[in-house]
Amino acid sequence: MSILIRNARVITASDDYQADIYIEGERIQAIGKGLNVRASQTIDATGKIVFPGGIDPHVHLDMPFMGTFSSDSYATGTLAALHGGTTMVIDFILQTQGKPLYHALEAWRGRSDGNCYGDYSFHMAVTDFNESTRKEVGQLIEKEGITSFKTFMAYKGALMIDDGQMVGLMQEVRERGGMVTVHATNGDMIDGLIAKHRAEGKLSPLYHYLSQPEVTEAEASGRFVDLAHYTGVPAYIVHLTCEGALNQVREATYRNQKVFVETCIQYLLLDASLYEKNPEGAKWVMSPPLRQKKDQETLWAGLNQGLVQVVATDHCPFQWEQKMMGKDDFSKIPNGHPAIEHRMELLWSEGVQKGRISPNKYVEVTATNPAKIFGMYPRKGCIAVGSDADLVIFDPLHQHKLSASNHHMNVDYSAYEGWEVQGKCETVILRGEVAIDKGEVKVKKGYGQFVRRGKAGKVV
Amino acid sequence: MSILIRNARVITASDDYQADIYIEGERIQAIGKGLNVRASQTIDATGKIVFPGGIDPHVHLDMPFMGTFSSDSYATGTLAALHGGTTMVIDFILQTQGKPLYHALEAWRGRSDGNCYGDYSFHMAVTDFNESTRKEVGQLIEKEGITSFKTFMAYKGALMIDDGQMVGLMQEVRERGGMVTVHATNGDMIDGLIAKHRAEGKLSPLYHYLSQPEVTEAEASGRFVDLAHYTGVPAYIVHLTCEGALNQVREATYRNQKVFVETCIQYLLLDASLYEKNPEGAKWVMSPPLRQKKDQETLWAGLNQGLVQVVATDHCPFQWEQKMMGKDDFSKIPNGHPAIEHRMELLWSEGVQKGRISPNKYVEVTATNPAKIFGMYPRKGCIAVGSDADLVIFDPLHQHKLSASNHHMNVDYSAYEGWEVQGKCETVILRGEVAIDKGEVKVKKGYGQFVRRGKAGKVV
Amino acid sequence: MSILIRNARVITASDDYQADIYIEGERIQAIGKGLNVRASQTIDATGKIVFPGGIDPHVHLDMPFMGTFSSDSYATGTLAALHGGTTMVIDFILQTQGKPLYHALEAWRGRSDGNCYGDYSFHMAVTDFNESTRKEVGQLIEKEGITSFKTFMAYKGALMIDDGQMVGLMQEVRERGGMVTVHATNGDMIDGLIAKHRAEGKLSPLYHYLSQPEVTEAEASGRFVDLAHYTGVPAYIVHLTCEGALNQVREATYRNQKVFVETCIQYLLLDASLYEKNPEGAKWVMSPPLRQKKDQETLWAGLNQGLVQVVATDHCPFQWEQKMMGKDDFSKIPNGHPAIEHRMELLWSEGVQKGRISPNKYVEVTATNPAKIFGMYPRKGCIAVGSDADLVIFDPLHQHKLSASNHHMNVDYSAYEGWEVQGKCETVILRGEVAIDKGEVKVKKGYGQFVRRGKAGKVV
Amino acid sequence: MSILIRNARVITASDDYQADIYIEGERIQAIGKGLNVRASQTIDATGKIVFPGGIDPHVHLDMPFMGTFSSDSYATGTLAALHGGTTMVIDFILQTQGKPLYHALEAWRGRSDGNCYGDYSFHMAVTDFNESTRKEVGQLIEKEGITSFKTFMAYKGALMIDDGQMVGLMQEVRERGGMVTVHATNGDMIDGLIAKHRAEGKLSPLYHYLSQPEVTEAEASGRFVDLAHYTGVPAYIVHLTCEGALNQVREATYRNQKVFVETCIQYLLLDASLYEKNPEGAKWVMSPPLRQKKDQETLWAGLNQGLVQVVATDHCPFQWEQKMMGKDDFSKIPNGHPAIEHRMELLWSEGVQKGRISPNKYVEVTATNPAKIFGMYPRKGCIAVGSDADLVIFDPLHQHKLSASNHHMNVDYSAYEGWEVQGKCETVILRGEVAIDKGEVKVKKGYGQFVRRGKAGKVV
Repeated sequence: MSILIRNARVITASDDYQADIYIEGERIQAIGKGLNVRASQTIDATGKIVFPGGIDPHVHLDMPFMGTFSSDSYATGTLAALHGGTTMVIDFILQTQGKPLYHALEAWRGRSDGNCYGDYSFHMAVTDFNESTRKEVGQLIEKEGITSFKTFMAYKGALMIDDGQMVGLMQEVRERGGMVTVHATNGDMIDGLIAKHRAEGKLSPLYHYLSQPEVTEAEASGRFVDLAHYTGVPAYIVHLTCEGALNQVREATYRNQKVFVETCIQYLLLDASLYEKNPEGAKWVMSPPLRQKKDQETLWAGLNQGLVQVVATDHCPFQWEQKMMGKDDFSKIPNGHPAIEHRMELLWSEGVQKGRISPNKYVEVTATNPAKIFGMYPRKGCIAVGSDADLVIFDPLHQHKLSASNHHMNVDYSAYEGWEVQGKCETVILRGEVAIDKGEVKVKKGYGQFVRRGKAGKVV
Repeated sequence: MSILIRNARVITASDDYQADIYIEGERIQAIGKGLNVRASQTIDATGKIVFPGGIDPHVHLDMPFMGTFSSDSYATGTLAALHGGTTMVIDFILQTQGKPLYHALEAWRGRSDGNCYGDYSFHMAVTDFNESTRKEVGQLIEKEGITSFKTFMAYKGALMIDDGQMVGLMQEVRERGGMVTVHATNGDMIDGLIAKHRAEGKLSPLYHYLSQPEVTEAEASGRFVDLAHYTGVPAYIVHLTCEGALNQVREATYRNQKVFVETCIQYLLLDASLYEKNPEGAKWVMSPPLRQKKDQETLWAGLNQGLVQVVATDHCPFQWEQKMMGKDDFSKIPNGHPAIEHRMELLWSEGVQKGRISPNKYVEVTATNPAKIFGMYPRKGCIAVGSDADLVIFDPLHQHKLSASNHHMNVDYSAYEGWEVQGKCETVILRGEVAIDKGEVKVKKGYGQFVRRGKAGKVV
Repeated sequence: MSILIRNARVITASDDYQADIYIEGERIQAIGKGLNVRASQTIDATGKIVFPGGIDPHVHLDMPFMGTFSSDSYATGTLAALHGGTTMVIDFILQTQGKPLYHALEAWRGRSDGNCYGDYSFHMAVTDFNESTRKEVGQLIEKEGITSFKTFMAYKGALMIDDGQMVGLMQEVRERGGMVTVHATNGDMIDGLIAKHRAEGKLSPLYHYLSQPEVTEAEASGRFVDLAHYTGVPAYIVHLTCEGALNQVREATYRNQKVFVETCIQYLLLDASLYEKNPEGAKWVMSPPLRQKKDQETLWAGLNQGLVQVVATDHCPFQWEQKMMGKDDFSKIPNGHPAIEHRMELLWSEGVQKGRISPNKYVEVTATNPAKIFGMYPRKGCIAVGSDADLVIFDPLHQHKLSASNHHMNVDYSAYEGWEVQGKCETVILRGEVAIDKGEVKVKKGYGQFVRRGKAGKVV
Repeated sequence: MSILIRNARVITASDDYQADIYIEGERIQAIGKGLNVRASQTIDATGKIVFPGGIDPHVHLDMPFMGTFSSDSYATGTLAALHGGTTMVIDFILQTQGKPLYHALEAWRGRSDGNCYGDYSFHMAVTDFNESTRKEVGQLIEKEGITSFKTFMAYKGALMIDDGQMVGLMQEVRERGGMVTVHATNGDMIDGLIAKHRAEGKLSPLYHYLSQPEVTEAEASGRFVDLAHYTGVPAYIVHLTCEGALNQVREATYRNQKVFVETCIQYLLLDASLYEKNPEGAKWVMSPPLRQKKDQETLWAGLNQGLVQVVATDHCPFQWEQKMMGKDDFSKIPNGHPAIEHRMELLWSEGVQKGRISPNKYVEVTATNPAKIFGMYPRKGCIAVGSDADLVIFDPLHQHKLSASNHHMNVDYSAYEGWEVQGKCETVILRGEVAIDKGEVKVKKGYGQFVRRGKAGKVV
């Protein structure tokens, strides 16, 4: 099996050129001008762009939550991702406090294995760090290829660990060659504000936002950065949303520290004014919440300053009916919004097309950096000889509208309804197979593979 | 004419893979596994690394100075550069105050044209900004492909412009799509300290260092960054040496500003203790001077933080006899040191080999970023289909010693005498021709071409 | 009853002049040159200095701890304070988690009332903030004149409140016109490090220090400052010791915030090298621990920058036998050291005498600022007509040595054994009575009164 | 001659109490409750406040400028000052470049001596630092009691010195025990912007403002602070107006540096929207110009943070006819505005009355700090036994309106026309003489004395 893509504009994290790409089996075999090869299939990419398949390192599929589950299964979620040019995702396994990490790993494998259309991996969320889980850290890195460990500074009693556990985990993970990632918001403060708002009868979606003011994220981000500096562990902040938090990372540069930062597409494009709608604002109830215009400016600048390395989604969809569990109380709205399908097209349209980031930066933050930071490079995240042929053939002139009526995610509304986008992921190739072609699915459920990862958090 | 390089480990600013590279004429035609092509010449690169030919954006060849000239001509300088894996340099044209920019351009062309072994371009140093030179800015960008304008905040009466001229130049250059670069040290303060030290009879090389304390560079760097922010011009600080100066750039990140920063190989590796030797310290008399160990740490961190984008040399060699013009007075020592030949090997050996930077970062700061920042990309600075075949075939296991006895620069001492280096630029290819092969020169004087550049200072 | 002090050099927080001071009853009646008055007693202060009696806002007397009590009772502690020129102290009431604030108030009153030689007041430490304690806050301010509320970010399970409780308390205290003070160290992190060191068998006093690295205080200080900014409550950090923590206060100045800062005499004068002695280092086991020389520099600068307003002691003495409860395990050493008697003389000798602070600053930070910040001004903390006649007649030429053999604190070693001091509190007057005269005690136990305080945290 | 003031509320930089004040000759003799003394004159101050006579350390009287003179002579200016509660001013002697400092001193003495109603002193503006003026620095400090040296970083060719001269002057002044003060704006940049605006025909008062953007002051302030840190000289920034500039001072606190900062009453109260009026905006044409509301917030915060120590006026009045020299060209409008009479009343009314600063802070920044910083303490700036009896008896309930129709400055408009003020300087006493009583002048021209000053820049 082989594919020859002719006359593409090829964009990588550093380069941008016209060439043919020749794929043999799962991998890229050659790149050149007028390649003299025979292929089972030839695709004419004249006028099209080819970039690496997106890697979304922050998604939650089929996630148990408040007696229900996030509405995209591993099947619908990874398939929607493919439609949108994302060929691989990293999901989160959540340890149950009091139980082993492996216990959760098995549960997550039960839901994901054999069900994915696209490739996938897992972060392990450590919600209870003790001598027993300490031992599992090394096993996960060495035996399972799970090398990144998520922590929560919020959700006390369910997911949160305290700063003593955090330091202990960081020291262990550093020893073993992994990386610690964090949901950095001050959970105790947020819990207090939620309780206060509820006691005052302030129950609309706006109070979700007002219960998580910028300081809750800025403070926790600074704290995490301090602890990472103390322990020397490679560190990564997920879904950073605001100026206050990024300023903590900037502050750390003065002591020669580097911390990896991920933001999400929604924080670059949407703002908190959406919470003024009730109950519609529930669509964007997520944590941290959307912020202000000035925060968007900071995040775009952060990308160009090299201080924000990744744009993800934190995809965690719920049907409107699920969202409406919280119609009388914002604290009961399941957190999360659907975006796995839109990240690549929205970032191109709003970022590259509008001149805010370069095409190279686009590839860097959607594919190459996630692959490098999380230990999947050079297999994933690039267009290079020998790498997996995970490619998007992108039509930069194709204009279309995002809508619940045509998206592929299993959710009955769109967070971007009516949003006009320039550029479309026309053909998506995963490990040498055309997975999506002009909207048609060409692979079967189960084609997606679990990807074992190597040491995480190396210098990019 | 064609070349096939077999089995190389190819490193670019983002990628790292095993492949063959096929060159046709001046350019790269194809990259692939087991390429099925015929070439005039085949090079077996098994066990070798191929990276892009280095671009040194800061050199001074045949530069008139104090009645003499820097000791490397365009011939010896660009040839030494090739020996060391640098296939292109950008030199500086210095306007004479009171005369047009074009006047200087002609003088520099007279010395450089037809004399180069490697490719070259020029920055234009504007030392007298007025209505007449304002008009020349546009012409240089559009007609000559000279798109970067150097300024000096020091050397009053010869090179320095004041802050009013700086703002005027910045506004004009911004309009025209160019970039302003700067030698950022407080000249008035330095002149005062030099005069004070001379009046006190403090005349040894150490007082060169003590006349340019960190504050002189930190202050001027901050001032330049402020003016660049006010005018919105793309801005680039050359030869940044110290924590104080980099902290000014860090400070600017808070207002979402981005400034490009270049350091030089010597500031990463050498420190001011060398000035305690008299007269030997004269070898390292350059401006800004070498700094402290803590500044080296800052600069290495700056590279990994993405805040320092380029490693250059500020190569400006003088024979020992020339240096000794200042044997009784540090202020008469011609400023500058020889490094054009050593940058690539030293940075690999001390940076990549010792784990301080990644191989990708190495390529980024020695080749890709200079090409992008200065408007030569994608022709230069990368290994990509369609780009100039400027390549280094590097033997990572070859150990050797740097010495005046074997270097190719026209200078009778080495600033790195006896320095042990791991890795050697074995074969150097420039625009599809083998220029150097195991120390033998294969091209003629005049092979090097002037490279017209496009818009500078775009987002990297 | 009246006293006339003749020919004193009078020093206040702003002034410095020669005059007579005339006291009638408890208060200052007149200040002037050659006052024409008759007094029951005349003191010739020629060559002497008169400054306000010191106020030490941070002491722990008769404090229950690990089944024992701090070794100075209210009698011995306030008497030692008087010997050292401190006429008033503020002690801490510690709420028992799960019990009302008033419950603790009664216990503390039981130990203090009728037992003090010097005047005293209490801070209320809120260790369990809930709806019931919320109501007590207002009562304490309005009915008891206890207007400052201490919080602990360390000592989980005993004293620590979480950030949600902190915000709740801050909001209530702000409403009621009080102030929140804090022991700002990251308790969870410290507990983790203590456990780690113990598990590793690292049990000497040095590990007390290494279990509370600078980051634990810097982080918590920044967090507290952030929460205070969010809530708008007047805020005060007790016993700040290090550069990292003061830098958080400096950072807050950028958003126009002001936070009050207290350091203690030991952090200005002693450093962590003392912990290398085992078991002697136990004498200085306190929390936070002593820091580095660079931190001392920061604290002296902070006083002069106006960013540190108070110098206290955190006096909390234990007999050597008590200290030796931890001879095999640093974590069992009772925390605290004896200093209540030495603050005034040490700060004059090391601060004023050595030119580090002005005489006015001395009075400001030992008396006037504590009085103003904690709501006792103008009754206390100054030499002004109508104020309490709490005065020290100080002999600036008297040289003496500090020693356990001559101090008055109930502790069998000195933390400053052999320290040479220039200047002595010769005569100490409290509310118009000579309390100490050349070492002789002139008042009886019970003379000291409880001082009800007004609104705290007003602008100084 | 003696005066007894009965029943005043006395406010000093640290204290606030009810008392009588007894003055004998020029000085304060006693302060007390119900003083039993006989005086030539008794003033009942029941319901009134007594605070120290204001010291305005930044005024320009009878200053030669563009062929004319600032419109207040030493007579009218110091008399208006007395009316407004300011009993002493410090004016500026401006060296003519190329001439000795003493040459200027004589010229200024010629205009001031014998003409003042209030006390006065001079700063010496060094506009040409060379070996000859270096020698005069010591003489001025030791023989003339002129201990503060003003520098200009703007007005090239007339007043500006370069950074080399600045460092030289700082080193000399530091040796001699003086202080360097600065007009910190980037003159070259401003000159360039003025020329640009004029070339573009942008000539209205608004362009005065737009020619001096915040960066021009922030940059220069940072530069001055850096040079002061390098040399270690006591340093003072005059008329600081904006957040950007104060942030430079805040930044310096991190390296344990302290710089004194003066703002002026107008920068606390007025903003740049006034420049939109043409030609009326000319009234507020001064340098630096008025700024934004956010800058006012910063300055009020700076006072309370202890980072701004002085509130002055930069009083430099011109008649409307003089202002209209620039009616067709903002660059020809004489810079300055009349405020010498209003500072004390405006700052009380807008600052103390509205709760932005405490009464103590009011006295500190209008009198005590100027006296201490400039070496006149304890003679001036306080209410203390033995100090000059320079006092204001202030009626805090008296409401009145500011207007050109009733002010005493020699200028035909008011910069605060119609401004409602609460509180009036009813009686003003200078060196034991009632100078102003309910608007009536009680002293003669020439009563004001030149005050020799001691070492400046000591820790406050």
